[in-house]
Amino acid sequence: MKLLTYKTQDTEPRLGFIHNNQVIDMEDFGEISNFPLPNDMLELIDMGFEIIPEITEMIAETPENFFEEIAYEMNEVTILAPIEKPRKNIIGIGLNYTEHVAESARTLDTTGKLPTKPIIFSKPPTTVTATNTEIIKNTKLTSQLDWECELAVIVSKKGKYVPKSEALDYVFGYTVINDISARDCRREGQWIVSKGQDTFAPMGPVIVTKDEIENPHNLNLSLKVNGVEKQNSNTKLMLFNINDLIEDLSTVFTLDAGDIIATGTPAGVGAGRDPQEWMYDGDVVEATVEGIGTIVNTIREI
Amino acid sequence: MKLLTYKTQDTEPRLGFIHNNQVIDMEDFGEISNFPLPNDMLELIDMGFEIIPEITEMIAETPENFFEEIAYEMNEVTILAPIEKPRKNIIGIGLNYTEHVAESARTLDTTGKLPTKPIIFSKPPTTVTATNTEIIKNTKLTSQLDWECELAVIVSKKGKYVPKSEALDYVFGYTVINDISARDCRREGQWIVSKGQDTFAPMGPVIVTKDEIENPHNLNLSLKVNGVEKQNSNTKLMLFNINDLIEDLSTVFTLDAGDIIATGTPAGVGAGRDPQEWMYDGDVVEATVEGIGTIVNTIREI
Repeated sequence: MKLLTYKTQDTEPRLGFIHNNQVIDMEDFGEISNFPLPNDMLELIDMGFEIIPEITEMIAETPENFFEEIAYEMNEVTILAPIEKPRKNIIGIGLNYTEHVAESARTLDTTGKLPTKPIIFSKPPTTVTATNTEIIKNTKLTSQLDWECELAVIVSKKGKYVPKSEALDYVFGYTVINDISARDCRREGQWIVSKGQDTFAPMGPVIVTKDEIENPHNLNLSLKVNGVEKQNSNTKLMLFNINDLIEDLSTVFTLDAGDIIATGTPAGVGAGRDPQEWMYDGDVVEATVEGIGTIVNTIREI
Repeated sequence: MKLLTYKTQDTEPRLGFIHNNQVIDMEDFGEISNFPLPNDMLELIDMGFEIIPEITEMIAETPENFFEEIAYEMNEVTILAPIEKPRKNIIGIGLNYTEHVAESARTLDTTGKLPTKPIIFSKPPTTVTATNTEIIKNTKLTSQLDWECELAVIVSKKGKYVPKSEALDYVFGYTVINDISARDCRREGQWIVSKGQDTFAPMGPVIVTKDEIENPHNLNLSLKVNGVEKQNSNTKLMLFNINDLIEDLSTVFTLDAGDIIATGTPAGVGAGRDPQEWMYDGDVVEATVEGIGTIVNTIREI
């Protein structure tokens, strides 16, 4: 199931799903199905992943003409970030692809050693923005705005000390995050100013529930700037895979339903290029993960 | 006004205030005053700081015997963290007192240079715990558990690009945070595993609204371990004061009502001592800020 948060000219943000290339409102679908369903992504996640196969079955059993009244064409809606206001900072993973560890050490302040444990940082909820929005580059803070295409994991339920073998039970689904990073904003090595500025986490366009992703460890991910490919890799090359990450993260923190884990970026970031490349006013950056979709954002300098 | 989150044997967590050394339930006070008031700290903060002088006046105008029905003795309630579930990670400030910059560089991996901009990190909402609870030391993760007594600022309203001169308009009040830090849990220099483990942010016992703190930049702060004083300083020695911090933070992030800023710790942490000192099972740590109170926690090794 492909879930999205959307609005129309007439509505507040609402929860929907994609069906036959149309957007169906989730709450409305619940009404025609006599099965109460929420109008908010986090409320749906709070119901537990188990609700997803139930809804999928209900959709399959619904005659197509029942959808007509509650369907929008894709061009009638504005797609918002699937989780507009996460309940805590996004959990970011750094240096999680071998080649990216190497390119980072060449030009940034990292050591170049392959990490023995996941490198963790955070991005505040205020970093979240949707596809087709602007990434705000504050030129008083940075002249080195960079991209990082990532697979993001949405956590399905509370978990502490989750063993690797059970980790995928704690996954609700997947989305795309572009982990925008201002390379010249590190302070005493801490990354939060670099990665935490408003609009630095474009996310979406949808959350694909885990049942629709055959193997999250074999997804191509790629990124273009102004149409030119800059990153192209595959999640099978993660150093710490999703099971590893959930075991480690849940040892440190209690994970909660709706938590978002951005699993790290492969090689090809601007900082690692020779010469280095950065994004400027008007540049268009597209981040794609196979099976999920593409988020497109434009840089706006202020 | 001294605000707290509390529960009794019979209630869920509720919002209260201290009046004549008793706890008065805020919602109940609203009812006897014919003025609807919330039962949750974040809901009160969302009403804006302007509500505080109004409530203060209502309290002053209420005959003392009216409080009898809705008052608890202090020993009848359990004091919880004033904000049990912050809406985003706590914003932490590192290296914000000169002597602490020096002691950190002697023994940790920091540079020893006085920062030219605030050093920012974060502590997830799951770090929050109350006074009189246990701090969980996971001995598989750390053998270097340290203390950091700090003044924390509670933000009153949404703010972006707040100038220093207006910064205190964005303050709701103050509380105490003990920024517990596992010194051996840094990963590629990032502090979130060190400072982000569950229970690593004891907070409280109350939020003192800003009208009751004459000068937040002249408060003693001190910390004891097993009754022995380890830290004793004053907020006047902050490198970046609250106005500086709010200007800088709001340039990077949009601040929101209910955000929590832990403003950094003075010298005297365990890592900076010769020999170094750490906390172990059963140790009792007390963090005090003048005018706010003391939070007391016991280390529990697992």
